[in-house]
Amino acid sequence: MTTPDFLAQLREINAQASFNRWLGIEVVEARAGFAAIRIERRAEDAQYVGFLHAAIVGGLIDTACGFAAATVAGSVLAAHFSVNCLAPAVAPAFIAEGHVTRAGKRQIFTRADLFAIDGDTRNLVANGEALLMRA
Amino acid sequence: MTTPDFLAQLREINAQASFNRWLGIEVVEARAGFAAIRIERRAEDAQYVGFLHAAIVGGLIDTACGFAAATVAGSVLAAHFSVNCLAPAVAPAFIAEGHVTRAGKRQIFTRADLFAIDGDTRNLVANGEALLMRA
Amino acid sequence: MTTPDFLAQLREINAQASFNRWLGIEVVEARAGFAAIRIERRAEDAQYVGFLHAAIVGGLIDTACGFAAATVAGSVLAAHFSVNCLAPAVAPAFIAEGHVTRAGKRQIFTRADLFAIDGDTRNLVANGEALLMRA
Amino acid sequence: MTTPDFLAQLREINAQASFNRWLGIEVVEARAGFAAIRIERRAEDAQYVGFLHAAIVGGLIDTACGFAAATVAGSVLAAHFSVNCLAPAVAPAFIAEGHVTRAGKRQIFTRADLFAIDGDTRNLVANGEALLMRA
Repeated sequence: MTTPDFLAQLREINAQASFNRWLGIEVVEARAGFAAIRIERRAEDAQYVGFLHAAIVGGLIDTACGFAAATVAGSVLAAHFSVNCLAPAVAPAFIAEGHVTRAGKRQIFTRADLFAIDGDTRNLVANGEALLMRA
Repeated sequence: MTTPDFLAQLREINAQASFNRWLGIEVVEARAGFAAIRIERRAEDAQYVGFLHAAIVGGLIDTACGFAAATVAGSVLAAHFSVNCLAPAVAPAFIAEGHVTRAGKRQIFTRADLFAIDGDTRNLVANGEALLMRA
Repeated sequence: MTTPDFLAQLREINAQASFNRWLGIEVVEARAGFAAIRIERRAEDAQYVGFLHAAIVGGLIDTACGFAAATVAGSVLAAHFSVNCLAPAVAPAFIAEGHVTRAGKRQIFTRADLFAIDGDTRNLVANGEALLMRA
Repeated sequence: MTTPDFLAQLREINAQASFNRWLGIEVVEARAGFAAIRIERRAEDAQYVGFLHAAIVGGLIDTACGFAAATVAGSVLAAHFSVNCLAPAVAPAFIAEGHVTRAGKRQIFTRADLFAIDGDTRNLVANGEALLMRA
């Protein structure tokens, strides 16, 4: 029996989403119940004072949660997600890490952290959660 | 005394956000405690099966909430927001309507509905809420 | 065909829950997609400064949501619920009104408002939502 | 300089809340940014099939979050809280552990886990979060 190649599977899903391609989301790590994604800032991703837009903050959290869920449940659809804005999202790059909290028969409970990345510095700027259904 | 021109004020804020410009968000209605925004679909806004991406769904809800809050509180920052994905977000255009539920001394509680727009048809596809702080 | 007697059905469910009996929850109104419940304050329901305890605030919101869901879906189980504390919950009585937002094949999306009742005065003190699964 | 006695402070707050006394909440652990509380099941705490009522589940999560916040911010008031029902809450006792995620100038972000306790077994049955304001 071979280990499923989660990284290759998530990269294939990621490449199918036009918004993920536009935003430049890279899947950087994946294992059963966990996925990490990364972006670099781009000129078109800001809210009105220049921080990373809440749409992108929420989208990275929801995507990291969905990718973590996909490692244990295959096709999933988010029913609910929420985001805490802990600190201004200002940095040249961001990493979101998603974790499965509980995988039930029908629902997958997940959570994610969003880190601002500047060189070797990694600062938690948002967290959140998503409740997904097996598709 | 003149009525504040909420529409002009929100359009000015909207124009300052590079992501709002990229996404083509238009402020279509504003009054005290209420704001409505609209987008047309574009090729780069999809998740992996072609529906409107959760980032955009959440971003429209958060933005409509923030604009509604701005009509009663000026500068605001979101602390928390959440999104319910009620139905697949498939349509040529979307309108998000934000409402202030309660404006306190420090916090503004808001909620928003996201409608898929196809000709004269208007279908609720998501809703959500945001808790904002006076900046 | 007779109309289902939602009020009688919800009162039967309500009577089966020992906490609902202790708290004195009464089902006061029910129709398809809607339920309202009521309590009177009692000495053991307070948090540390005497307001209605968050457990009771959340419990009334979750119960009103669940009862509204039961009118369209029969047996349900809450997967997620959330509460906004809009104002101090101080009054001799409280009414929670639950509404179904969307009933899907597997999930029921609901929301509820909690009103402080003092004679003829009715003041919104909390709101919230619940996502329930068909059992 | 002496270390603040968080356990004594939280026990004093806990004793002031009539609902906490009725429910038999004990503060079992406290340090800066963390608090743990415990209850034993009692006959009046059940929902309609006998599991621990959502009001109590949510109340324990909100209380653990609030007590954790109090260790870093003194008097606090919850603005928003949410609960994930991960598994049926069935056990002779429950422990809720609250953690401060971020303490800002005005807001405290917290999260909590609720464990079912049966002898030496400890099973995660719910989690959640609360956003509190400095009072």
